[in-house]
Amino acid sequence: MKQKRKELQHYVKKKKLHCALFFNLSMNIDPNFFYLTHYDGYGCLILLKDREILLVPEMELQRARRTVKGVQVKVYRKNFWEVLRKYIKGKYIGLDFNAITLSMIKSLRKEIKGKRFVDVSALVRNIRSVKTKKEIGILRKACSKCFRNFRNFDTEKDVSGFLYIETIRDGCELSFPPIVASGSGSAEPHHTPKDYKLKKGFCIIDFGVKYQGYCSDTTRTVYIGKPSEKDKEIYQFMLTAQDNMIRSIKPGQRCTRAYDHSLKELGQYAKNFTHGLGHGVGVEIHELPDLRMKSKSRIEEGAVFTVEPGIYFYNRFGIRIEDTVLMEKRPVLLTRISKKLRIF
Amino acid sequence: MKQKRKELQHYVKKKKLHCALFFNLSMNIDPNFFYLTHYDGYGCLILLKDREILLVPEMELQRARRTVKGVQVKVYRKNFWEVLRKYIKGKYIGLDFNAITLSMIKSLRKEIKGKRFVDVSALVRNIRSVKTKKEIGILRKACSKCFRNFRNFDTEKDVSGFLYIETIRDGCELSFPPIVASGSGSAEPHHTPKDYKLKKGFCIIDFGVKYQGYCSDTTRTVYIGKPSEKDKEIYQFMLTAQDNMIRSIKPGQRCTRAYDHSLKELGQYAKNFTHGLGHGVGVEIHELPDLRMKSKSRIEEGAVFTVEPGIYFYNRFGIRIEDTVLMEKRPVLLTRISKKLRIF
Repeated sequence: MKQKRKELQHYVKKKKLHCALFFNLSMNIDPNFFYLTHYDGYGCLILLKDREILLVPEMELQRARRTVKGVQVKVYRKNFWEVLRKYIKGKYIGLDFNAITLSMIKSLRKEIKGKRFVDVSALVRNIRSVKTKKEIGILRKACSKCFRNFRNFDTEKDVSGFLYIETIRDGCELSFPPIVASGSGSAEPHHTPKDYKLKKGFCIIDFGVKYQGYCSDTTRTVYIGKPSEKDKEIYQFMLTAQDNMIRSIKPGQRCTRAYDHSLKELGQYAKNFTHGLGHGVGVEIHELPDLRMKSKSRIEEGAVFTVEPGIYFYNRFGIRIEDTVLMEKRPVLLTRISKKLRIF
Repeated sequence: MKQKRKELQHYVKKKKLHCALFFNLSMNIDPNFFYLTHYDGYGCLILLKDREILLVPEMELQRARRTVKGVQVKVYRKNFWEVLRKYIKGKYIGLDFNAITLSMIKSLRKEIKGKRFVDVSALVRNIRSVKTKKEIGILRKACSKCFRNFRNFDTEKDVSGFLYIETIRDGCELSFPPIVASGSGSAEPHHTPKDYKLKKGFCIIDFGVKYQGYCSDTTRTVYIGKPSEKDKEIYQFMLTAQDNMIRSIKPGQRCTRAYDHSLKELGQYAKNFTHGLGHGVGVEIHELPDLRMKSKSRIEEGAVFTVEPGIYFYNRFGIRIEDTVLMEKRPVLLTRISKKLRIF
């Protein structure tokens, strides 16, 4: 993305760095590299003060040229380091310390001698946490793709398989393997869907898709069988609490404040809430801001994040409700599927 | 996997390390961590000389206990480092430098003072490159899952979508997004499937599934339309060449030797072969051995790897044929789908 690359270049200048480097050299696509280029092939992005260069292996030249606009695409063959050295003259080099492995830094130190490496991870994380209009459009669409044609199933795996297949049919990928947790499985926040029949009681379905490289994340808790009055009450309690948590969030607010407020909303159940309140979403399913107890981030305008309180009663049941939310003047729901208790 | 954990513990003792640590603390599952535990939740595996400890967050306790046998599962709440420190007394700590990020090593240095970190990445890579009987069984099954019910399609995306959906239906995942490259797209080794109609000529389909966490990888080149005699000839040439390349591989042989031999087989087309000959597969789609020009590995008995020569003619066409192969006394094909030129 040109706009965000420019922001980074601005920083490179301001901090008197010679350049910032982003590598994508394994099958696991580096999220920052993808974010800055929207190209998922092998390569190295060199952001100099006044130039943007993308180094790619010979076999990716055509694809890279087609995909990434506004950069100079250069080719390496077996001489990656040699080609890289050619473009790197200055001393201070920006790197994402969260993405660079210890082996890679050792190679860098060996191959490009006499440099000082400066961590730009916080900067990139922050740049990513505020979305552009185009990104919001994509995220909105990613969020609209949940739970279409939802119907009855036999086993937990049936449900997750269905969600998977519908996602692919729709031309998307999954953000993560869906969680389908029925019966006492719902008391485990990260339950893996099983082959046994869906158990009666609350069933947590946590599901997100990736659309044009951007993630959505939604959880709904449904009921299998006939809920008692007590079941309905506790669900309604969680629903109201989650609504209040979302509504109370203000732009610029500290994440810790949102988290503290969620504990208040949960009252006697606060002790059954065993994870964070939410996390940013974007090209990765977990980004900034992180709405957790010890978070240092704030919820800025343009941030897209989840609000997902859950309460868990070991060996009995759990309830979690999660939406993806866009921070504007007020919080805006991107996941608009009904939160009324659905009964199957 | 207990057997491989034991191998590592043996090394910990031999190298006089206090322990080896493997972390899985993000949504991207660390392959070594998964390999050693077959558990995909958050956690840290501590391999001491005489104990195996798995630290997990409270919410994963039940799942971890169920999944990982033969280790002591311990819980951390907000005090990860404190709990970790409790089990680490000695000075020399083994880490996988290919997996540890620079940020993580900084945290480790800050939180666990006075330690010396020793790279165990080569060791783990090597341990992973020779498969156990159980792993071979799983890989064999992963390899049998290619191209069932293959039929006619309209666009490249139709084909990749079909492969995706069939894989999910089968209870597997993809090893990587399928490559479907028709017409001149087949001249790009890593072409992304497009929405336009399948073009006439050679069409490369590169596809692999993940079954019980283990990858398969196969490429077939089919023909859309009516191949000329020259088309048939060049395909037959590649097929014979690929067969010869596989058959010539001996256990214990250097990878560079297999690569050099592949160039000989390709003769006048060697210059059109722009990538490596193959790579190991296992819990990752790219593992050791790497069958490339500058490789340092050998092809040991028990290794599972691809043989995938390809020739590419810019803006015209490409042909690649790839199988997943198990090294026994002789090479054994795991991907047994026909390599006769299929015409659509």
